[in-house]
Amino acid sequence: MGGALSLAVWRDLLRRCAKNRPLAGNLVTAMNDNLHQLRCIGCGARISGGEARPDFRCAECGELFEVEYPGWAKRGGQSAPNHDRPNPGALKWLWRERRCSSEELDHSGVWRFRELLPILESFGNAVTLREGNTPLYRLKRAAKALGIDQLYAKHQGMNPTGSFKDTGMTAALSVAKERGFEWVACASTGNTSAAMAAYAARAGLKSLVLIPDGKIAWGKLSQAMDYGAVTCQLKADFDGCLTLLTEIVNEAPIYLLNSVNPYRLEGQKTPAFEIAEAFDWNVPDHLIVPGGNLGNSSALGKGFRELHELGLTARMPKISVIQAVGANPLVRSFTDHNAERMEPVEAHTRATAIRIGNPASWRKAARAIQETGGWCLDVSEAEIAIAKTEIGAEGLGCEPASAVTLAGLKKLRAAGRIASGETVVLVLTGHTLKDADYTIDFHRGTLLTAEESVGREAEIAGLQRNARVVDATPAAVLAALKDSVG
Amino acid sequence: MGGALSLAVWRDLLRRCAKNRPLAGNLVTAMNDNLHQLRCIGCGARISGGEARPDFRCAECGELFEVEYPGWAKRGGQSAPNHDRPNPGALKWLWRERRCSSEELDHSGVWRFRELLPILESFGNAVTLREGNTPLYRLKRAAKALGIDQLYAKHQGMNPTGSFKDTGMTAALSVAKERGFEWVACASTGNTSAAMAAYAARAGLKSLVLIPDGKIAWGKLSQAMDYGAVTCQLKADFDGCLTLLTEIVNEAPIYLLNSVNPYRLEGQKTPAFEIAEAFDWNVPDHLIVPGGNLGNSSALGKGFRELHELGLTARMPKISVIQAVGANPLVRSFTDHNAERMEPVEAHTRATAIRIGNPASWRKAARAIQETGGWCLDVSEAEIAIAKTEIGAEGLGCEPASAVTLAGLKKLRAAGRIASGETVVLVLTGHTLKDADYTIDFHRGTLLTAEESVGREAEIAGLQRNARVVDATPAAVLAALKDSVG
Repeated sequence: MGGALSLAVWRDLLRRCAKNRPLAGNLVTAMNDNLHQLRCIGCGARISGGEARPDFRCAECGELFEVEYPGWAKRGGQSAPNHDRPNPGALKWLWRERRCSSEELDHSGVWRFRELLPILESFGNAVTLREGNTPLYRLKRAAKALGIDQLYAKHQGMNPTGSFKDTGMTAALSVAKERGFEWVACASTGNTSAAMAAYAARAGLKSLVLIPDGKIAWGKLSQAMDYGAVTCQLKADFDGCLTLLTEIVNEAPIYLLNSVNPYRLEGQKTPAFEIAEAFDWNVPDHLIVPGGNLGNSSALGKGFRELHELGLTARMPKISVIQAVGANPLVRSFTDHNAERMEPVEAHTRATAIRIGNPASWRKAARAIQETGGWCLDVSEAEIAIAKTEIGAEGLGCEPASAVTLAGLKKLRAAGRIASGETVVLVLTGHTLKDADYTIDFHRGTLLTAEESVGREAEIAGLQRNARVVDATPAAVLAALKDSVG
Repeated sequence: MGGALSLAVWRDLLRRCAKNRPLAGNLVTAMNDNLHQLRCIGCGARISGGEARPDFRCAECGELFEVEYPGWAKRGGQSAPNHDRPNPGALKWLWRERRCSSEELDHSGVWRFRELLPILESFGNAVTLREGNTPLYRLKRAAKALGIDQLYAKHQGMNPTGSFKDTGMTAALSVAKERGFEWVACASTGNTSAAMAAYAARAGLKSLVLIPDGKIAWGKLSQAMDYGAVTCQLKADFDGCLTLLTEIVNEAPIYLLNSVNPYRLEGQKTPAFEIAEAFDWNVPDHLIVPGGNLGNSSALGKGFRELHELGLTARMPKISVIQAVGANPLVRSFTDHNAERMEPVEAHTRATAIRIGNPASWRKAARAIQETGGWCLDVSEAEIAIAKTEIGAEGLGCEPASAVTLAGLKKLRAAGRIASGETVVLVLTGHTLKDADYTIDFHRGTLLTAEESVGREAEIAGLQRNARVVDATPAAVLAALKDSVG
C-alpha cells in the first residue's frame, strides 16, 4: 500500500526532527539559543532570551518584549534567497503528516508547529497536556441570521484547562523548565492561574498564585487548587499583587508567568496556524477576537503575520477586537488618541475574563488591528448575554467573554463593514463551564439590570430557559413543551 | 513525495466511503438497515432497530437491548472466511489515515471508526461536535508511587461538554435525527442532560430534561440551559421522572436518550478503539473504570470484545469497575449473589456522577468484568478525595467520580492483583470543572466528615491547598512558600 511507504518516510523525518537535527535541505533550521531574540516594542532594543530581566520589562524604556527570529528575515530581496528561512511547502507537508504521528509532541496543536516557535534548546523540554487542535465549528444558524455565507467559531475553550491560556502556558512553562526554575508564579484569579497550575504540575514544578485578600471567587480558584498551586491572599489590591510579584521575581528564582512573559504569546499564536491550515492555507477574510488583556489578539496577529512573511499564506485576515462597554480602554484609545496612547479605565463587566482596565498588550493588539484593516469596538452587557445564548443554541457554549465576538460581528455586519461573501472566524476563548454562574443568573433573570435590558426585555425573556414546575402527568409535560416553542 | 501519492489514494477511498458505497474488496461492508440488529440481553430475542419500543425495553422480558452486527459473525470456522467481515489491516490503515483528513466526520474520535458502528442509513446524518480523540496521559508520579511501570489516564473529560457522555450522545442523537424525530428527552440533572442538550442543539432538534421538583443543582443544569434545553421540574422523585418519561415517549414522538438507549453504548465503545490504537493494537493489561450507571464499563467491554472478535487485537484487557462505598450495588451483587442478580441500594456519595443505586446496565458490566477476569470493588469518600488530588498533581484534574479509578488501583495493587510490569489505563470520565464545589470544599476542609477522615487526618491536611492570608511583602510571601513545601 502507498500509505505504508509514506509512513516509513515521514517517521524517519520525524525521528531526525525530534533529535533537533536539521531535516534534509532547508525544511527547518537548526534549533539553538541564537535562533530567537527579544525585541522591545517600545524602543526597539534587542536582547537575547537569556538577557531578559525577571520581570520581562525593557531595561531602557520599561516596555514589553516580543520574540523574533532573525534567521527568517529576507536577505537582499527575492533574488537572494535565504536558506535559513523555513520552506513553506515542506512545512505544510510535515505538519500535516504529524497529525498521524504517535509522538506525544505531535499530538499538541502548539508543538506540532514547532519549527515556527524555536524557543527551546531542546524540544525534549516541552511540557504538554495535548493543548491545541481545537475544533473549528461551522455556525450555520448565526450565519443565516446574519446573511453571511461562511461563519466559523474556533473554540479555544476546548483546551485542557478550558481556556486559550493553555496554548501560551505550554510555551512559557517549557522555557521555565528548560532554564531550571523550580517555582513559577502569576497574579491572577482566573484562567491564567488554572493554566499555570496545570502545566506546572505536569512539569513537576511548584506554582504560586497571588490574589487580593478578601475578594476570592472560589469557583475561579478551584482549578488552581486542584492542580496543587500555593495561593496567597495579600493585603493589597490587584495592582499591588502584581507589583509585589515583580519585586519577588527580581529577588528569588521564581519564573514570572503573567502576560508580560513574551513566550506565552508564542504559544498563543499557533491557533492562527491551525486556522490557516483548516482553510488549506487560504486564510479567512476576517478574524474576530475578544479584547481583555489583549495578549490573544496580539498573538494571533503575530501568528498570521509570520505565516504571511514566510510565504505560507498570501495575506493576513482582518483582525477585529471586541471589548465590553464597561472595559473598553482600547476602543477609547482608537477613538480618542488614534491608538497612539491608552488611558486605563476602571473596568466593569460580568464577562470576567475581559474585565481588564489596563491591558498589558495594548500596543501589540493595536498594531494587529491597524496593519490588517480590522476594527475595534465595544458591546453592551445585554448584547453579550444574548450572543452567548445564540452560540449555545449552536451546541457550543462558551464563557461570556467569548460571546463578545458574535455580538461584535452583528454590529460590524449592521454597519456594512463585512460583506455577505466574506469568511469570518470568531475566536471563542473559554468553555461554558468556566462560568456556570453567569449562565444560571441569565436564565433565572438575575444577571442583567433593568437598565441593561432596556428596550430588549421581550427578546431576553424569549431566550431564558428557567426550569418550570409541572404536574407529573404526560399531559402537563406535553403542554409545557408546546408552550416552550411558542 | 511519497506522502502526496498516498494522500490521493486515501482521499479517493474516503470519498467513496462517505457516499456509503462499499470500498474495494472487503474493507468495509455496505451500510444499510439490515447491518445491525438489537438483541435482548435477558431473553436473547432479536429485533431490527426500527422495531424497538420507544422505551427500548424488550417486549418479551423487559430487559435492555444491545446492538449487534450479524454480518461480522464467523461462518464455518477459519476455513470458510466471511467476506462481509471487516478486514483488520485495512481498517487500521484507514483509521490512521483519517487522522490527516479534513472531513468533519474524520475529526470525530467516534465516527473515525464508523465501520465498527454502522448504525445509520447514511453517515451524512451524523451529528458531531468533534467528540473523542481524547488524550491518553502518562501518570508518571502515581506510577512511581505504586511501583507500576506503565500507568496511563484516558481523559474522557476532555470531550466537548466535559464528560464521556458525548461519545455516546453523538451516536444516539444521530439515530434520532435520521429517524426524523424533532424532540429528544432524558431524565437527568447531570452530564447526560448537558451532552443531550448540546447535540440536540447542534442537530437543530429540541430537547427536554425532566428533574425532580425542588432538588435542583443549578450548576449541573447550567450547560443544558446554555444549549437551550427545556427543563421541567416534576412533583415526583427521580424514579417517578423516569417512569413518566417512559409514558411520554410511548405516547408522543419524542426520542428517549436515557442510558437504556442501546445506541449510546455504540458511541461509548469507541474509546476502546482509541486506546487499542494508541498502543499500536497491543491492548493494555488492565482497564479501570468508574462504576455508576455502568453503561461506560459495558460499552468499553463491548468495544474491546469486538476488536478481539474481529481480529484487530489478540486479546481483551482485564476490565475492573470501581464504585463508591455508599453506592456499590454491583460490588454487592458480586459479593452476595455471584453477579446473578442485583439489589438496588440507596446511594450516598459526594461523587455525584456515580451516585446511582439502581444501575440500568449492571448485567452488561458484570459480563465485561467476568469475561476479562477483572474485579469489582468499592472505595471510601476519603480515598476518592485523596486520589483526586493525586490526579490533579499530575496536571490533569477530573470530577470526583473519575478519581475512584486511582483509588481502586491502589487497592488492587496492595492486594497483589496487579503486577508491577502490567500496563494499566484509568478511564477518567469527567472534567474537574464539572464539579468545582467538590474541589473547593475539599481544600477548605468542609468536604469530609470527621468519621470519613478518621485515621487519615494528617494525610488529608497535607493535601489541602487553602488560600492563606499573607502580608504584602516579599519576605512574607517567600516565607509562606517555604512553609508550603514543608
